[in-house]
Amino acid sequence: MRMPPSDAPPTPGQGFRPKARRPRGLEDRRGPALARERAAIEAISKVYEKWGFEALETPALEYADALGKFLPDQDRPNEGVFAFADDDEQWLSLRYDLTAPLARFVAENYDALPKPYRRWAAGPVWRNEKPGPGRYRQFWQCDADTVGSASPAADAEMIAMACEALEAAGVAPGRYRMRFSHRKLLDGLLAAVEIEPGREAEIRMRVLRAIDKYDRLGIDGVGALLRQGRRDESGDFTAGAGLTEVSAKLVEKFVTGVSGEPTEVLRTLTNLVGGTQQGDAALNDIENIFEVLGSRVLIPHSCHIETSVVRGLEYYTGAVFEAELIAKGSDGKHVSFGSIGGGGRYDDLVARFRGERVPATGFSIGVSRLVAALEAAEGVEAANGPVVILSLEADRMADYFAMAAELRNAGVRAEVYLGAGKFGPQLKYADKRNAPLAIIQGSNEREKSPPVVMIKDLKLGAEMSKSIADNEEWRKGRPAQIEAPRSDLVATVKRMLAGKTK
Amino acid sequence: MRMPPSDAPPTPGQGFRPKARRPRGLEDRRGPALARERAAIEAISKVYEKWGFEALETPALEYADALGKFLPDQDRPNEGVFAFADDDEQWLSLRYDLTAPLARFVAENYDALPKPYRRWAAGPVWRNEKPGPGRYRQFWQCDADTVGSASPAADAEMIAMACEALEAAGVAPGRYRMRFSHRKLLDGLLAAVEIEPGREAEIRMRVLRAIDKYDRLGIDGVGALLRQGRRDESGDFTAGAGLTEVSAKLVEKFVTGVSGEPTEVLRTLTNLVGGTQQGDAALNDIENIFEVLGSRVLIPHSCHIETSVVRGLEYYTGAVFEAELIAKGSDGKHVSFGSIGGGGRYDDLVARFRGERVPATGFSIGVSRLVAALEAAEGVEAANGPVVILSLEADRMADYFAMAAELRNAGVRAEVYLGAGKFGPQLKYADKRNAPLAIIQGSNEREKSPPVVMIKDLKLGAEMSKSIADNEEWRKGRPAQIEAPRSDLVATVKRMLAGKTK
Repeated sequence: MRMPPSDAPPTPGQGFRPKARRPRGLEDRRGPALARERAAIEAISKVYEKWGFEALETPALEYADALGKFLPDQDRPNEGVFAFADDDEQWLSLRYDLTAPLARFVAENYDALPKPYRRWAAGPVWRNEKPGPGRYRQFWQCDADTVGSASPAADAEMIAMACEALEAAGVAPGRYRMRFSHRKLLDGLLAAVEIEPGREAEIRMRVLRAIDKYDRLGIDGVGALLRQGRRDESGDFTAGAGLTEVSAKLVEKFVTGVSGEPTEVLRTLTNLVGGTQQGDAALNDIENIFEVLGSRVLIPHSCHIETSVVRGLEYYTGAVFEAELIAKGSDGKHVSFGSIGGGGRYDDLVARFRGERVPATGFSIGVSRLVAALEAAEGVEAANGPVVILSLEADRMADYFAMAAELRNAGVRAEVYLGAGKFGPQLKYADKRNAPLAIIQGSNEREKSPPVVMIKDLKLGAEMSKSIADNEEWRKGRPAQIEAPRSDLVATVKRMLAGKTK
Repeated sequence: MRMPPSDAPPTPGQGFRPKARRPRGLEDRRGPALARERAAIEAISKVYEKWGFEALETPALEYADALGKFLPDQDRPNEGVFAFADDDEQWLSLRYDLTAPLARFVAENYDALPKPYRRWAAGPVWRNEKPGPGRYRQFWQCDADTVGSASPAADAEMIAMACEALEAAGVAPGRYRMRFSHRKLLDGLLAAVEIEPGREAEIRMRVLRAIDKYDRLGIDGVGALLRQGRRDESGDFTAGAGLTEVSAKLVEKFVTGVSGEPTEVLRTLTNLVGGTQQGDAALNDIENIFEVLGSRVLIPHSCHIETSVVRGLEYYTGAVFEAELIAKGSDGKHVSFGSIGGGGRYDDLVARFRGERVPATGFSIGVSRLVAALEAAEGVEAANGPVVILSLEADRMADYFAMAAELRNAGVRAEVYLGAGKFGPQLKYADKRNAPLAIIQGSNEREKSPPVVMIKDLKLGAEMSKSIADNEEWRKGRPAQIEAPRSDLVATVKRMLAGKTK
């Protein structure tokens, strides 16, 4: 099972000694922080299951050509993914998301799958990127996708389910915004904008990039990028799209003005992009999405259309979604804690393999980021460790283990101290474990008739030692320590854990 | 969030089209099989938590030198692990187990950790090996380790906890054997055996390899390997250890004869290896392990000492454990379904980094193998899919979604059909999803006063269609289909799922 290194274990002090170091950009996660992430994944996946999505686990490794050789906005192959040659000379890559492996899986098993195929998946993904604060090279995603349905109802389902999943993971209604838009609205807008003939592709890309920077630069920055260009703080100049004033104003209106009540949004959008082929297609989809979302049970509180949402331009083909965490800042205003999930319709991904288009839509929750953002926004309470049973007499380990087993059978996390330390170090260990209680039975307690245990409330003890100046007095009173008959161990521990001292 | 390939999606039929294929030796796992594995991991980790072990998740990638460059019984570096150079020219490897990363983590964070440090971990590991039937290059392990305690009580805890974890994962008591032994028993045995001077190391290795083959070759094969050597079916000859007859018989007795009641085992072992320094140390540890395990609450039903257990000779330094799944064959005899977990004491692993020894002991459950073995031994029942609501009228998606939401709020997995198919294909989809029920509301049902839904019991329908020869008669009777007022949808579905038709 455990496959060990086979070079003989080094005698201490001899031979090569590697430095123990975690590779850069990768995290060790432990204890309560890890438990919170696992709980979020479980809560999210339970929602996905309830909505009829089926679990899928593909391997971490895929053939590089199946993942796609190129990464967004980069011309170099294999940048951004960890890749290496297998011993049969084929290139393997660590997956960088859960969608590319899904496309491979669907294409490989197309005939056997129910269609549409709804699946969810949770697992780590890897990015071979420069690490930075809060940017890791391995993190968890928890995705749901519907492959094989072109219906806007499938997009609506994604939005509603993602809202329910975020709320199940602990994001209260009103603490997040689910924004959505439609890729073809932009196409309609671009069709409505006057563009210098011969430079259509280049100018359109500049317009899209300008729109995508609205969150960061505000409308002035976007306005500059739509017209003559913009110089940033560092002095770098970004060339503008060179739009006419009328066209630039149209785009600005699109970016800033279109949000609010469904009917109002649809009216405004019709004025802006209606009549263009792509615009009308988008409006029709959005109307359908609203209809399904608007049914009395489904409408998520926090769901808004916002035309400034622009995601993966080369990738998404229809509706696009983005969820961000918000919190009230000290000034009472809402502060964004950043994106915690997103997705959209991508009808072309499976076509890479099959030649024919397979409509698909999905949503991905960045669980690691979600949990970190929730912690930053709300803080966390330290979770209790296990009850620690001190081992004071070396020949009585069996008795201590019996105590632990009784407590565990009653549903209480419990462990026996296993080190070589004396009383003081054992209590220090219990503190380091964040133990709520320590169980003490030395010869004094054991020899009483009937035998007793001392149960030390470590939290209460710490609290009281803060407030009581006279240490001597506190020790005498021993208010945070209770003597109980050995036979009452479990009942007394449960009472103390419930916060009752008597 | 989802990072897409950036090369423009190919127009169908154009350009390079990769073949959709899973890399060899790797699995896609889905639906109920995956759910069983996840449930096993959750059950096992809940036991570990209850025993006071803390969760740890280290990254999938480690520096190759930190993992150890060599693999067991192989002289070539990096065989068996997936490895590649990072962009700073350092070699990264995918972890091949969860123990080597633990050793790195402990060495890196030694001073901050409580000691002993009990941790559990669950995750995939990767082996760059030739794949074969049931042998995969990625599989899950679920480990618990105690680092920093040399006490035999820590080994006893591992054994007892592993038994509880296996039982929590669905292995009934009596359906597995937890065998354990001690590395130093062998050292004691080797000290008691007469060996030609000058060839000690070589002969001892041959004796150990012979013992390790007992399960596969039986006592005759081992006997041959202890004496002159053995030729196998393929004609290959393995040189023997060349022991004297007295010594060979001693080893044979050790391999075959030593199991049974604790006191009896200890007596026999004392006769075989007592008096040697290593043998006495092992006997002392085993006595202590028995004492803790023997305490009235802890003793696992299925735990036996068996001296033939020989694991990772270069790696383990004390107690060794191995769990195997057993089932009654058709002839009433117990059949082994192979190893489902194992571990032992390894006091040298952290020393690779720190120079000084850090005592450690652990147990690893091969979850993927465990679940596969349980399925092979016991078979599995097909799990129900979600309730499927047919979508018969295109403009009523919101109503269908409302039905699904009502069912989900009542705890019933439910989904709306989202494809473009008509009635027949929709029912086929529901069958493919293994749906227990299909909800049908077309215009006929909707226009009744009050409106109704038809609820079709797909399982019952399938059962009955097997037994009813006359299809016409069955269709008329429609025994597996119930009409209910729309307002009674949830109550009727819950009743039908509970197996009651009225």
